[in-house]
This record gives sequence, C-alpha cells and structure tokens, in this order.
Amino acid sequence: MTTAPAGYTYQQAAGSPVTRNDLQRLLTDVGWTDEDAQALRRAGDILAPRASEIVGAWYDFIGSTPHLVTTFRGSDGEPDQNYLAKVRGRFEQWVVDLCTRDFDEQWLAYQEEIGLRHHTSRKNKTDEVNSPATHVPMSDMLALVVPVTQTVRGFLAEGESDAARVDEMQQAWFKAVTVSVILWSRPYAAELW
Amino acid sequence: MTTAPAGYTYQQAAGSPVTRNDLQRLLTDVGWTDEDAQALRRAGDILAPRASEIVGAWYDFIGSTPHLVTTFRGSDGEPDQNYLAKVRGRFEQWVVDLCTRDFDEQWLAYQEEIGLRHHTSRKNKTDEVNSPATHVPMSDMLALVVPVTQTVRGFLAEGESDAARVDEMQQAWFKAVTVSVILWSRPYAAELW
Repeated sequence: MTTAPAGYTYQQAAGSPVTRNDLQRLLTDVGWTDEDAQALRRAGDILAPRASEIVGAWYDFIGSTPHLVTTFRGSDGEPDQNYLAKVRGRFEQWVVDLCTRDFDEQWLAYQEEIGLRHHTSRKNKTDEVNSPATHVPMSDMLALVVPVTQTVRGFLAEGESDAARVDEMQQAWFKAVTVSVILWSRPYAAELW
Repeated sequence: MTTAPAGYTYQQAAGSPVTRNDLQRLLTDVGWTDEDAQALRRAGDILAPRASEIVGAWYDFIGSTPHLVTTFRGSDGEPDQNYLAKVRGRFEQWVVDLCTRDFDEQWLAYQEEIGLRHHTSRKNKTDEVNSPATHVPMSDMLALVVPVTQTVRGFLAEGESDAARVDEMQQAWFKAVTVSVILWSRPYAAELW
C-alpha cells in the first residue's frame, strides 16, 4: 500500500484504557496461542494482497442490507458514497494490520480509536460527515464477527491447499477478529466492559 | 432432563426490550438461514444428550483461569462451589434450549434475563450469593464465543461422520451462540446496543 487511507491515524492514536494485562486476559479467553500468532501471519500472506476483494464481499453485504447501510447515510438520508469509500479504505487496512501488526500498546490505542469512531463519541468526525446516524449499534458491530470470519475461508483455501493449514489460519483469524470487535465495544460498556 | 435446574425461569421471564424485528436484524447480520435452523436442530440431537460433558469442558477452562473463576467467588473471596454448581445446571440447559427452542418472544425474554444476571442489575440474586463480583465483565462474556464455538466441533464429529454435515452444524451453532451473547450484552450498552 503506497499511500495511507484517509483518516488512518495508527501511529497517532493517543492510547487506550485497556492495558496490556487486560489484553492478555482477553487473549486467554479466546485461547490465543503462539501457533495462532504464526498462523495469523501466514493468513496475512494470503489475505493482505486480496484485502480489497475481501472487504468488497463485506461491503456488498452491508450495502444490500438496509439496517446496516443506514449507518453511512448523509444529511439527505441517502448512503454517502464518499463516506462509504473512506471507511472502506480503512477497513482494508484493518485486514492488513490485523494479520501483520504486533498486539502492543499502539495496536491497542488504535483499536480504541476504532471503537470510539463507531460510538457516539466520535462517529462521523473523521470523515466530516453530517450523518443522522449518531453511532453504529453495538449489536450490529459485534455480529459482523460471523460474516467476517466465514468469508475469509474461501480466500484462505485458494492460497493454501492443505486443509489442516487452512483450518489453523481460519481459527487464528476468528480469534483475532473476536478480540478486535470486543476491544471496539469498550466505549459502549465503560466500566462494565 | 427430569427436573428443571435451580433458578431456571424460562417460562416466567418477563420480556425483553429487544423486539422480534430487532432479532430479525441480528439474524440477518449473522447470515441466518432456514438451513441453519435445520442444522441447529440436528446439532441438538448430538449435543443435548452430552450437554453435561460439553459444559464440563468449558467449566474446566473457566475454573483454571483465575480472572474467569473470580466471578464465582463468595464472600470469603474463594470460588463458591454451590454457586458454580447452580450456574452450571442452567448453562447445560442453555445448550439444550439453544438447539431446541424457537427464537420467539419467550426465548428473547429469557436471553434478556440471562443478560441481566451477568450485569450489575441482577448478578448474584438468583442464587442468593454474597459475592464481591458485582458483574461479569462484558469482554469476558463475549469472548467465550470462541471456546464455546470451538469445543462443540469434536462432539459434533463424534455424532456425524459426514464432514460437510458437521460443518453445517458447526456454522449454525457459531451463528446461534453469537446471537445469544449479543442479546446478553444488551444491558451493558443500553440505548447504544
């Protein structure tokens, strides 16, 4: 990727109230292992070059589902194509980051930033959209774990012929996606998170 | 199951702010299909008779993970075995219910009740425990989607030799579990759910 997506502020993210210890507990909850970390890197070799196609599949789903696309409506109530395009660039970058970044403080800080951008705290601000959608409902955000997990399987199988290796990558991806969306849910639950 | 688990109040659950339409949106999010509904019933034929073993595997994990077992501590700060046993009975019943109940208003009402029993609203009340753990952190509750999804695969494979049929049941279970825990998360996010 030669230029960073609009509004992508990974290095500038200020911080997260989620500590490294909190993250370690969450990784324990999902059964994260060193083998998962390695499998996720291998998944990245297959998924990162195809991030645009993968996110395209999710966007087709979101775009054709009225209660999901409504989050992208502009001041006229219609889906804002410019807004959709900007979020899409960052969504593609997220696929790459999830497979290639270390789960360190900076990664935690940017997950917090992503969460705030779904929450009333900061939705619409990054892309300067005048949208009547004040937040992404937490339920819809969390539920995307399923399509986001299932869709990658076909891509992984096209890049790796050994079914057991595909399974390893798929499971590592499932765990990592689950951890991501749970981190994004933090602003919604505050001290009960 | 001849006697209902202690504190199991499925038929008495008062209601949920989540409407049938909300549920339909959530099912759409996870890509729920009629085929999933059928596969989940078939999964129930395999899983329900083994609910005790399945929950036993989860309990081994929870019991050996300090930050998870802490939710079950009594007034002396130690895990309360009576409390653990009562919750376990309802957890087993949940496996059966998820595979066999219709996703109707009463089901929604009891998912709401389960959510409230994890939240500060109602934790410890059902089992009359004097626990310093005032709530189950939402992050830990949501993260259990991963072990709860992964563990059933072995059980399904022992009951069905056709790998494609196992996959169908596994995917239906994954979707249904995800919908369940998202419903349980409702009290944590209130109007932003």
